Amino acid sequence: MDKLRTYVLGATGLVGQRYVEALARHPWFEVVGLAASEKSAGKTLASVWILESPPPPQLAEAKVEKLDVESVPKVDVVFSALPSEVASRVEPELAARGLTVVSNSSNMRLDPDVPLVVPEINPEDLRLVEEQRRRRGWRGAVVKKPNCTTTILNLPLKPILDHWGIAKLYVTTMQAVSGAGYSGVPSMAIVDNLVPHIRGEEEKVVAETRKILKRDVDISATTTRVPVLDGHTEVVYVETERDFELESVAEALENFRGLPQELKLPTAPERPVVVRREPDRPQPRLDRWAGGGMAVVVGRLRKLAPRRLAFVALGHNTIRGAAGNSILTAELMAKMWP
Amino acid sequence: MDKLRTYVLGATGLVGQRYVEALARHPWFEVVGLAASEKSAGKTLASVWILESPPPPQLAEAKVEKLDVESVPKVDVVFSALPSEVASRVEPELAARGLTVVSNSSNMRLDPDVPLVVPEINPEDLRLVEEQRRRRGWRGAVVKKPNCTTTILNLPLKPILDHWGIAKLYVTTMQAVSGAGYSGVPSMAIVDNLVPHIRGEEEKVVAETRKILKRDVDISATTTRVPVLDGHTEVVYVETERDFELESVAEALENFRGLPQELKLPTAPERPVVVRREPDRPQPRLDRWAGGGMAVVVGRLRKLAPRRLAFVALGHNTIRGAAGNSILTAELMAKMWP
Amino acid sequence: MDKLRTYVLGATGLVGQRYVEALARHPWFEVVGLAASEKSAGKTLASVWILESPPPPQLAEAKVEKLDVESVPKVDVVFSALPSEVASRVEPELAARGLTVVSNSSNMRLDPDVPLVVPEINPEDLRLVEEQRRRRGWRGAVVKKPNCTTTILNLPLKPILDHWGIAKLYVTTMQAVSGAGYSGVPSMAIVDNLVPHIRGEEEKVVAETRKILKRDVDISATTTRVPVLDGHTEVVYVETERDFELESVAEALENFRGLPQELKLPTAPERPVVVRREPDRPQPRLDRWAGGGMAVVVGRLRKLAPRRLAFVALGHNTIRGAAGNSILTAELMAKMWP
Amino acid sequence: MDKLRTYVLGATGLVGQRYVEALARHPWFEVVGLAASEKSAGKTLASVWILESPPPPQLAEAKVEKLDVESVPKVDVVFSALPSEVASRVEPELAARGLTVVSNSSNMRLDPDVPLVVPEINPEDLRLVEEQRRRRGWRGAVVKKPNCTTTILNLPLKPILDHWGIAKLYVTTMQAVSGAGYSGVPSMAIVDNLVPHIRGEEEKVVAETRKILKRDVDISATTTRVPVLDGHTEVVYVETERDFELESVAEALENFRGLPQELKLPTAPERPVVVRREPDRPQPRLDRWAGGGMAVVVGRLRKLAPRRLAFVALGHNTIRGAAGNSILTAELMAKMWP
Repeated sequence: MDKLRTYVLGATGLVGQRYVEALARHPWFEVVGLAASEKSAGKTLASVWILESPPPPQLAEAKVEKLDVESVPKVDVVFSALPSEVASRVEPELAARGLTVVSNSSNMRLDPDVPLVVPEINPEDLRLVEEQRRRRGWRGAVVKKPNCTTTILNLPLKPILDHWGIAKLYVTTMQAVSGAGYSGVPSMAIVDNLVPHIRGEEEKVVAETRKILKRDVDISATTTRVPVLDGHTEVVYVETERDFELESVAEALENFRGLPQELKLPTAPERPVVVRREPDRPQPRLDRWAGGGMAVVVGRLRKLAPRRLAFVALGHNTIRGAAGNSILTAELMAKMWP
Repeated sequence: MDKLRTYVLGATGLVGQRYVEALARHPWFEVVGLAASEKSAGKTLASVWILESPPPPQLAEAKVEKLDVESVPKVDVVFSALPSEVASRVEPELAARGLTVVSNSSNMRLDPDVPLVVPEINPEDLRLVEEQRRRRGWRGAVVKKPNCTTTILNLPLKPILDHWGIAKLYVTTMQAVSGAGYSGVPSMAIVDNLVPHIRGEEEKVVAETRKILKRDVDISATTTRVPVLDGHTEVVYVETERDFELESVAEALENFRGLPQELKLPTAPERPVVVRREPDRPQPRLDRWAGGGMAVVVGRLRKLAPRRLAFVALGHNTIRGAAGNSILTAELMAKMWP
Repeated sequence: MDKLRTYVLGATGLVGQRYVEALARHPWFEVVGLAASEKSAGKTLASVWILESPPPPQLAEAKVEKLDVESVPKVDVVFSALPSEVASRVEPELAARGLTVVSNSSNMRLDPDVPLVVPEINPEDLRLVEEQRRRRGWRGAVVKKPNCTTTILNLPLKPILDHWGIAKLYVTTMQAVSGAGYSGVPSMAIVDNLVPHIRGEEEKVVAETRKILKRDVDISATTTRVPVLDGHTEVVYVETERDFELESVAEALENFRGLPQELKLPTAPERPVVVRREPDRPQPRLDRWAGGGMAVVVGRLRKLAPRRLAFVALGHNTIRGAAGNSILTAELMAKMWP
Repeated sequence: MDKLRTYVLGATGLVGQRYVEALARHPWFEVVGLAASEKSAGKTLASVWILESPPPPQLAEAKVEKLDVESVPKVDVVFSALPSEVASRVEPELAARGLTVVSNSSNMRLDPDVPLVVPEINPEDLRLVEEQRRRRGWRGAVVKKPNCTTTILNLPLKPILDHWGIAKLYVTTMQAVSGAGYSGVPSMAIVDNLVPHIRGEEEKVVAETRKILKRDVDISATTTRVPVLDGHTEVVYVETERDFELESVAEALENFRGLPQELKLPTAPERPVVVRREPDRPQPRLDRWAGGGMAVVVGRLRKLAPRRLAFVALGHNTIRGAAGNSILTAELMAKMWP
């Protein structure tokens, strides 16, 4: 089978390079081009590479192109990791030109005709594309992955919602610096320190969770930045609608599977949620790569009172929280609409 | 006035040295001796000093004595920063010998006849000493400071409780490595990482808060360790009994004063709770020294729903959370029972 | 005595704020105005403050002015912490207008008529100002402090040079992130990492050392960045011209004094070089504030072979390495040319 | 072919687990048992696992045995990562019992009849085993890998020595915390800090380098600890005996190969020394896994003067610096004496 052709926008950033890293070894997709802002245009991928693993050999000498809607080739999927202010201009133009854009940027996420997808949770929302095309007169489409913190939170919430209902939710996050982009958090701001605020993040967690779960969930969120490179940790308190046995919750989380697992999609983790029973897990440095960065690791499951559950969830913010979730979504689309 | 004579137990540890540092410049107290385990006996204080500031010149060459109940001199106050397993043996013996011990160790904290004191909140509990002496037949006494996380939490809780009542509480902490003692957290465990569990800590927060506030408060707590040297950060959600105006809460926190402020005790901070209104404060590196390490800095005050309050509190865990709170308690005792 | 009036350029940066912090409590100087780039113009100092200690109360509400040569008032000293590309335009204009500029920026440092001063080492170079004025037709003057790494290196080198001569020098530095400015080193670049290169730094160390010491010293330098907030550490190997006794070197370093000590200038440290004899000192977190940040702490003094000396030097890069050295220079100028 | 049977001593430590991790996927070796101190005896490997990657599935439930010379089975190789004070007792007893011990511990390294081997540099020293057996009356043998810093230094030194000779050497290291073992460096000692001393390390670098290179090299070394998890960085200045072209040095390093490469041993890296030409490499986080952790990455190659070379070398201290070098040595022995 010929590989599906993809093009990566924002290839000089952390998420853009996570796309490149994953697509370079992907069985279904290949990267035919990379674009970024004018500043990096003409440089080789190797010369702008910022990840801890080396650049994929077959793309190391690829030239980063200047982002230009007109010159994006007719690929099967465009993966976008552009800054939102750029994305909000570029992505609609690409969709209008017939391209399918799977995007990380926060623009349009809450538009009712835009799928905001965690493939294990709401794959059916990909159907919104039809309405989107009709309404907007596009031949292509824009599909979004949620905010990183939201995705990592929602994966364990889904089975809990399905089994016991969610009456109320308190979340406190400790988020990795990579979530702000390579230069987003100066070392002077975070060494021997933490910052108890991330602009716009709490609002995204609330609004996007409601869209994904299709419930008006009562969520209180506080999002903080800690001196961790990769991996968002989230301390979650759930007041459920119905009472539960703690062991049943652990089982529901471990047994949770979605369409990607059923379809055996290439990057679908065997288990979207991994439960650790040691008292001191999950930890970002030890658990962020679970399931190739695609699993959310849950630990410290506790029943604090009737209908009151606590746990800690951890996921790789630029894999499951970003590029990985988008690629899994694209796999799903490729399978559904071959 | 002659200074009150004090003796410091556990002088080789972080908290023990915070005692020494503060007592060396104290207007009422002086240090007449230091003790630690056999390992350090005979060494000079300077040679075992581990704080970031230099040792007090007048004590730098003082010899650390081997801890021995018999040889503790008849001082006015013994400050104890011993490991709990040692303290639980030594402290009662000292009290039996007529010494007043103000202690950091976790033993005896929940005994009904032992004062567990945050001087701004429950100074009246110092009276328990009379019962303690009567019951135990001691001429001296043991007085305790609460767990560091508990003290930092309770200072802002107190005015909220008094004005609006507390129906329920969710707390998530991000605690400094110094809380585990100098060698408590290996760098391999915490660089580029966090640990979502601190043994015994959550239980202490719940039980001690109830004792201090004299209420059966409904508390859910998750305590974590982050790569910060000093300063515990706590994300707090309070469901109050009565509804509030957000600005009134800010004012109640800012106007909160206790007996130490009224009596103008030497180390009492002008304001026990400082409110910051910037969106990104408090931060441990910037705010831990507020009020000389004795103030708790509160920020991100938010009204999330009717009767639902959120905030972030930060305090210096080895000052207000430990040695500083004990010294303030000793000042109060000296004033009350001169 | 009326205080000398000063004006600070670059007041939103780390070094600019170290100026403000020190000048606000200075017995001879007062700050009458602050300027920075257009971006911060009109903001209060408190709102742009980035140091770990709070802004000086008397200046907290001072407005940062937009940098404009025409509107700099006729003060006694202008302290400049501007980016070099701005400084190279602004400083000459200020000097031409009659202002005395004491500057941190790297422009003009190697010009033969520009004093490049470590006050304990080459105070006599301040006389170059006369030639500078004559040559350039300025009524004012521009005086420079050296690169931070250079200053910290040269203080211990000076007595060694004077006593034993320096045949050759090998230096490896481990520099704090603050040396690159608040946003200069992203946390993604330095957490669990180090970077073995700082652009232009090695060339500065070589050229500036030769100008300060007035010798064509044979220097090999490698400068690196490490995850430390403040305090540059330098591992130095010196091949001396004449053989030495190790203890004599320790004494020469400890006994080293300069004109600032003789004149008892307000911010002159009692000892410009402090010698520590413990095997594991100096350490940045423990030693950077020695002498109020104005002393260089030397440790690990070793005689490795005849005429071969090794030591480790540490200094606070934004105090002795920057603002502090400039203020000490201004004190010297105020004393010499009252 | 049946796999060679190995037994790992010190399996609860960082290096012991690097052995297990590598041996579990090794084509020639298998692990038949693990031992550690009494404290961990009886626990599963999974329950004591401290590496960032998960324990090998086939060994996760293996029980850690109590170290006991008598009960070590008759395996083909014993890999030892014991503390030196234990190793100095245990290893000779095992060798006397006929076992071949390949060891990380520092005891016996300088004994003239003990091979101290970097397989690319001095494989011929394995022959010393014959003399060792004869002298000591052992049927087995003890073979040592050098100190981690020494191995990483010597790999690039070897081709330089061979081509241009080494007159003198100045080395300054910045070493990872894992070099001190999991609990060796408390976070309080190293966050926002560095420590300019590692006990005994400089002496090892000097003495072991001379043994490995069989030259009385003039070495000055300063070894420091920095807040990096894995990967030792070394800044090296070499005064060569004969002058060189810089590009020839780069080529000599890149073209350097040894017997392991010739024999295509399973864990031999394609290139023992990798040369990076970017100005800011090597960096520990980015380069420590080069060649599977078995390559030393060299950068910042500079010719500072005639016959004066500078470079920065980096290697993974627990792979090439420890377990990896020992396994490569064992592969060589297996090939030479099948």
